[in-house]
Amino acid sequence: MTTTMKAARWHAANDIRVEETPIPAPKDNQVKIAVKFTGICGSDLAEYTHGPQLIPVDKPYPLNGHQGTTTLGHEFSGVVEAVGKNVTTVKKGDRVVVEPIFKNPESPFIATGEYNLSEPLGFVGLTANGAFAKFVVVEDYMVHKMPDTMTFEQGAIVEPAAVAAYAIQRSGMKMGDTVLVTGAGPIGLLTVQVALATGASQIFVTDLSESRLKMAEEIGATHTFDARDKDIPQKIKEMTGYGVDVFIDAAGAQASFDTGVDSLRNGGTAVLVALFGKDVVHDALNQTLRELTIIGTAAYRNIFPETIALISSGRLPVENLITSVISLDEVVEKGFDALVNDPSEVKILVDVNR
Amino acid sequence: MTTTMKAARWHAANDIRVEETPIPAPKDNQVKIAVKFTGICGSDLAEYTHGPQLIPVDKPYPLNGHQGTTTLGHEFSGVVEAVGKNVTTVKKGDRVVVEPIFKNPESPFIATGEYNLSEPLGFVGLTANGAFAKFVVVEDYMVHKMPDTMTFEQGAIVEPAAVAAYAIQRSGMKMGDTVLVTGAGPIGLLTVQVALATGASQIFVTDLSESRLKMAEEIGATHTFDARDKDIPQKIKEMTGYGVDVFIDAAGAQASFDTGVDSLRNGGTAVLVALFGKDVVHDALNQTLRELTIIGTAAYRNIFPETIALISSGRLPVENLITSVISLDEVVEKGFDALVNDPSEVKILVDVNR
Repeated sequence: MTTTMKAARWHAANDIRVEETPIPAPKDNQVKIAVKFTGICGSDLAEYTHGPQLIPVDKPYPLNGHQGTTTLGHEFSGVVEAVGKNVTTVKKGDRVVVEPIFKNPESPFIATGEYNLSEPLGFVGLTANGAFAKFVVVEDYMVHKMPDTMTFEQGAIVEPAAVAAYAIQRSGMKMGDTVLVTGAGPIGLLTVQVALATGASQIFVTDLSESRLKMAEEIGATHTFDARDKDIPQKIKEMTGYGVDVFIDAAGAQASFDTGVDSLRNGGTAVLVALFGKDVVHDALNQTLRELTIIGTAAYRNIFPETIALISSGRLPVENLITSVISLDEVVEKGFDALVNDPSEVKILVDVNR
Repeated sequence: MTTTMKAARWHAANDIRVEETPIPAPKDNQVKIAVKFTGICGSDLAEYTHGPQLIPVDKPYPLNGHQGTTTLGHEFSGVVEAVGKNVTTVKKGDRVVVEPIFKNPESPFIATGEYNLSEPLGFVGLTANGAFAKFVVVEDYMVHKMPDTMTFEQGAIVEPAAVAAYAIQRSGMKMGDTVLVTGAGPIGLLTVQVALATGASQIFVTDLSESRLKMAEEIGATHTFDARDKDIPQKIKEMTGYGVDVFIDAAGAQASFDTGVDSLRNGGTAVLVALFGKDVVHDALNQTLRELTIIGTAAYRNIFPETIALISSGRLPVENLITSVISLDEVVEKGFDALVNDPSEVKILVDVNR
């Protein structure tokens, strides 16, 4: 009986190795999943280019003791292979996706349902071994069943789609609202799709990459702008009358923040979904006089079922964002390096059985 | 027949003169009010110490043509003296308070009900002559009747109380929530009163002035802190378990902003009600990871009736904030200068008939 499997493991920045590692076994409250497809996320990329960011290198992650070398991968679909003895929610053979957030039972935010605010926050594939491998073991509370109508490729994109869905939900967007999304990476483009599914009337997108703006238009953005254009707020105000109702920052820099805030209507709402690398200089007086609301969103909570419903009903065609499907052996060169060097790549899936 | 009256008129920074000025007459849609009491507001003080801020000196205010020397005063109560021929909502003898915001009929924000967002924003007593005088003329849509149970002194505090009520309303505060108010000036203290009336369980207040912190405790704050204390966020987290649900910035500086943001629970809400003098440096990553919401509020809208109801029912004892009642002749020395120099002064009312 085989006891090892190939896995893409992070050892250090710029050092991800596809190598043999033990096949994990589920504990009493865990589920072992035979992985189908796993997407490469921006946070995986951050671990690769300048990690460790969330990977616990200096001390173990308190909720499970995990430390050091880590199998990446937290956007995935698969089939239940085995369950621990306490698990009653899923059984062998179930088609599933995984909501990879760990829940600290001692956090006050578990009782309130705000589990994405519990500390220390952790994720499968970052603070535990993840799904760039044939098998992964996760906590039972993380597992959601997939409808029969959803493909495993779609299933692998539920996690980033949940980020976008949560950002739009928290923005309070209503049917007919106008929206600006800065940054046309996977999260930005998924946000465009969720905005469409929510009834947005005009959807503006900025990015530095022409190919990403082209994809934004293909999936339904009504207007796109080169992010370097200084007149974006003025142009948006002309096209909307008084500015956008909602601004989603999926870029996370001073320039995108300023462009978005200046493009908002008085009384508008900004949602910060990107992880900013630096502090921003913020005109708080302008925020007060123009009555702007700025909302931070951390991942998602209580939104996987709704996201799955949107995708499986065809209203969120996330499969259109897949630009490549590669094998596990190709994950560094055709996965991580491609995402670093080629802006025309958007969502790359790894078929771990290829 | 007397055709002039005394009025406190702003000529320039540090140059407010009590002098004779013509008694105004109402146009067709205006109401002439015999003033009872008028409060001195922080924005009046800003015009005095480093104006012009909102007073239109270089060009006329577009909605009424007013320009230059201005009778200050926008927090007031009085009795209707005369009405223009189109006015049907009030009549001579009615006891009234005034919501001093001008509504630009051409703004898209009038149709939406968001009249405080219309531009150019203007106020009686800043972009029109105000109520530091025996008579003032206002637009008919600004006038609210006072219940018989409300005193004219209370009526003069409805306007700043509306600022505080609107800030708490926009914060989404629920019964039992905890709140931090930075800055124990009139708006900060009124916010404490509104928080009490809304069912806040713990109310923390910071200020630099010991006498203002003492007043905060007298009106119901549960804990007060010297604003220079570096350990406020830590102490608040110990007392609340995980930080306050709501932070109201009624101080408007980098230090108050940082103290408040650091004192918020994950998922908490900040409301910026003070007018910041400078940009803030803001940790947007922290806002995202901790899922904080930051809301700007500009004055108020659609909240005078509710504010009047709270005051007249005794739940908002705004009269407790009155520290002096002075005559119009005393308005510079015992009013403006006292507020600049003596932090134990909170709300000073001018009795224009004294």
